[in-house]
Amino acid sequence: MKVPLTPIRFLYRARDQFGSKRAIIEDEDSWTYSQFSDRCHRLASLLLSWGISTGARVAFLSYNSHALLEAYFGVLLAEAVLLPLNVRLTANDFRLILNDAEADVLFLDPDFLPSIEEIRGDLRTVHRFVQLDPGHQRDWIEPHAYDELIQQQSPAPDKDVRPIDEDSTAELFYTSGTSGQPKGVMLTHRNLYLHALEVALMLGIRDDDVQLHTIPLFHVNGWGTPQFLTCVGGCHVLMRKFEPQTTFRLIEKHRVTLFCAVPTMALSLLNHAGKRDYDLSSMRLVNLGGASSTPDLVRRLEETFSCQCVAGYGLTETSPIVTLAFPKAHLGERGEKLLQTKAMTGYPIPGIEVEILDHAEQPLPWDGTTAGELVVRGDTVMKGYWREKQDDLAPSDAWFRTGDLATINPHGYVRIVDRKKDVIISGGENISSLELEKTLLDHPAVLECAVIGVPNSRWGEVPKAFVVLRSQQATSQKELLAHCRQQLARFKVPRSIALVESLPKGGTGKVIKRKLREG
Amino acid sequence: MKVPLTPIRFLYRARDQFGSKRAIIEDEDSWTYSQFSDRCHRLASLLLSWGISTGARVAFLSYNSHALLEAYFGVLLAEAVLLPLNVRLTANDFRLILNDAEADVLFLDPDFLPSIEEIRGDLRTVHRFVQLDPGHQRDWIEPHAYDELIQQQSPAPDKDVRPIDEDSTAELFYTSGTSGQPKGVMLTHRNLYLHALEVALMLGIRDDDVQLHTIPLFHVNGWGTPQFLTCVGGCHVLMRKFEPQTTFRLIEKHRVTLFCAVPTMALSLLNHAGKRDYDLSSMRLVNLGGASSTPDLVRRLEETFSCQCVAGYGLTETSPIVTLAFPKAHLGERGEKLLQTKAMTGYPIPGIEVEILDHAEQPLPWDGTTAGELVVRGDTVMKGYWREKQDDLAPSDAWFRTGDLATINPHGYVRIVDRKKDVIISGGENISSLELEKTLLDHPAVLECAVIGVPNSRWGEVPKAFVVLRSQQATSQKELLAHCRQQLARFKVPRSIALVESLPKGGTGKVIKRKLREG
Repeated sequence: MKVPLTPIRFLYRARDQFGSKRAIIEDEDSWTYSQFSDRCHRLASLLLSWGISTGARVAFLSYNSHALLEAYFGVLLAEAVLLPLNVRLTANDFRLILNDAEADVLFLDPDFLPSIEEIRGDLRTVHRFVQLDPGHQRDWIEPHAYDELIQQQSPAPDKDVRPIDEDSTAELFYTSGTSGQPKGVMLTHRNLYLHALEVALMLGIRDDDVQLHTIPLFHVNGWGTPQFLTCVGGCHVLMRKFEPQTTFRLIEKHRVTLFCAVPTMALSLLNHAGKRDYDLSSMRLVNLGGASSTPDLVRRLEETFSCQCVAGYGLTETSPIVTLAFPKAHLGERGEKLLQTKAMTGYPIPGIEVEILDHAEQPLPWDGTTAGELVVRGDTVMKGYWREKQDDLAPSDAWFRTGDLATINPHGYVRIVDRKKDVIISGGENISSLELEKTLLDHPAVLECAVIGVPNSRWGEVPKAFVVLRSQQATSQKELLAHCRQQLARFKVPRSIALVESLPKGGTGKVIKRKLREG
Repeated sequence: MKVPLTPIRFLYRARDQFGSKRAIIEDEDSWTYSQFSDRCHRLASLLLSWGISTGARVAFLSYNSHALLEAYFGVLLAEAVLLPLNVRLTANDFRLILNDAEADVLFLDPDFLPSIEEIRGDLRTVHRFVQLDPGHQRDWIEPHAYDELIQQQSPAPDKDVRPIDEDSTAELFYTSGTSGQPKGVMLTHRNLYLHALEVALMLGIRDDDVQLHTIPLFHVNGWGTPQFLTCVGGCHVLMRKFEPQTTFRLIEKHRVTLFCAVPTMALSLLNHAGKRDYDLSSMRLVNLGGASSTPDLVRRLEETFSCQCVAGYGLTETSPIVTLAFPKAHLGERGEKLLQTKAMTGYPIPGIEVEILDHAEQPLPWDGTTAGELVVRGDTVMKGYWREKQDDLAPSDAWFRTGDLATINPHGYVRIVDRKKDVIISGGENISSLELEKTLLDHPAVLECAVIGVPNSRWGEVPKAFVVLRSQQATSQKELLAHCRQQLARFKVPRSIALVESLPKGGTGKVIKRKLREG
């Protein structure tokens, strides 16, 4: 018997086996798994009542909310593709992505009415706009808000999952990738199903886990939580936006057992005076990711939350988790050595193989010092980029290239040592240095420029630009920053701009960013 | 990217990530995961050097041993199908199965040289016999034993798993099934891969787990242990045959964390005087299966091993685990109620759905009292029976029928209440009452008969026969038992035979076994 691998089956299992249990808690509201499933089916009915076609893209522009969590299943039940948008992008980014994806429908938090209004005329395919909360009427938006609309629907009967093509796209996530141009990452039903099983196995997720959704769900498949926590019947606790005091309060109130964090978030928790005022004893795991961690950060988190803390690594293209830095019992590590291991990139989850390759695409030794490009093969690697042709199983495509430089030690632990693709990670957000460089070059006074990430205690790193001006052109750093602010999402704007005489270059004329980083 | 789901990938992961760790312990020998992988590859090389063809059946007749564990991966690496034989069957059973499966090669423990010698002339396809231990030479057997043969091979290079058809058969297990005629159950690479992930997730298997192989590996896919423990890099401790004192000794010596047991084995452990002489503090889980358990048995096991004990349920046809009786935290059960839950059949692992159907194949309510035939759908249900045509995804075949009558309670817990198919489970072995009835009917004095299982404190149940003699024919119970002993494996022989005047029958003339059971 072969039943298609689809996360829809996790929803059914949770409803059948944990129907009366609280599935989702958001502020003062909560929903059981029966209610959650019912609402997902109503969302599907709504989409189908609009005549949405199989494979159509349904976009959500939302902070963490029950509606967004419902979309992870409801959109799939309608045989459509979920397209979650990063709320931190600009109106211009939304325009590019919605047009590139040819989305049919956009559900949006009222906070984004102004930016969507701005670009609405340019959207070529979106023909319905639904606000997630009532009361902010516009003439171009559906007269009823999300909750009213789905209440009007009768829940669709259970979808027979057997006709689903497990290799069809279930989710489309845009990532800045290597080129600076946002690209749509196609994750299949099978990718999501296997990712959930494989990550849950390694994280040891159980039905008594209560996870706080600190990481935005629109980020790289919500680190897989929508699927894996539902699969085992765990409890989702939502927070609209990450905020340290609220995090402590919700951990105490709902006896939270685990959460994920990028180092920036973790630091803000550790530096918050309120941490001692709350009972955090329910915690069993903090999972760090999104940027490199330190043994000291791991130690401080373990002390504060009295639980295990491990780092991890992933990419939108890999559903996302590739490695988790759990210790291996047989190595018998203790003390500082153990903390170092937990702060590493980690070792692959089941279902994932890794190698490091040299420039001739040959595997390099796992000696902990030789660095090569980290490549990944396995169950959770995307189907491909939207609009890009590819034949996944062609020999040349045997590995997915992460674009990251890494070492692997003799025990199989990966350590990312550099980013080949020059993406700056600031507060867990990917910033393409190429995009910033293009923006700066748009300014008439700029001759050439280079953008690098520089360490920052709060954000991990922030972008810094080095600019060479055209001769006889005069401009100020302030004017260039204003130019950037006009063009870019706020978090992408360079923190500082240095005006320099020239940029360090290699033989081929390419800027050597390493020299800029070394100062 | 789509990489075929095959347990071979678990072997690679264990070798790459846990290469220097002890993978297998057997008596005074042990092998690391690197060595284990090397030996599996040598076994594959051996089979390939013999020109074994893709999909050929390679039979093993062995107690638990490193060789049998290697076969779970080595045979698959050669693209052949593993056929593990139950050592408790008769020479006649071996003949039937080896001919039905058209096995090419038979690896056998020297204990079975006499029975195989007896049937060798009748084996139509087996053309090579390899003994697993040296020194018992026969002219029809390979001159070198298993270990010598694989040492002579150079390990094959890693098999590229990408061309493997994940829906091809990896293992063939014979089960007495409903008809009494042994039938080959085809488990695919995909079945085994998903079963491993789904069972390991629910059992919470980790790399620091040390599992004692108390259950024969040839039994229903070794309850999935060969795959799921390898997947996470756990340690396999082998015992040739189950024996209580040895069990205690090995738990202490190797700091075992979990084992599986049928109730008969569990009882023999509990009744063993030596249990107090050993340090059993490493244990974290006992998994009971193979026959129904009681709250008292669960309680006594939890006390003796100071760890959690849960029951479970499975079938050869389902890879095998269908349900595990873990408590659900949100129900907050305590004391006797909790023990009752842990002794139940359990609730489905991820990837499995269950229903109970009435005679019209309609789903029955989950009220804990209404009984119907338990049916199963999911990732781990076999491809089909060998030699039987079937179209797995046809609507009529939407569910696999277990042949067991069950209730499901409102919380989703299954309880098997009767066996529709009349299989007697004795000491964890399936005995078809039909087979025994056929054997008895072969005796000239027997007019009609019926065989049922009766409770037995040691074996769970044992077969009991009710026989009506032909008029003017005289025979004794002793003579009928002697007849059975000649025809049947020892464990199948009825424990008692009652000579009766008539059998209770229903309207259609069918024997009502329920009445016999009620005495």
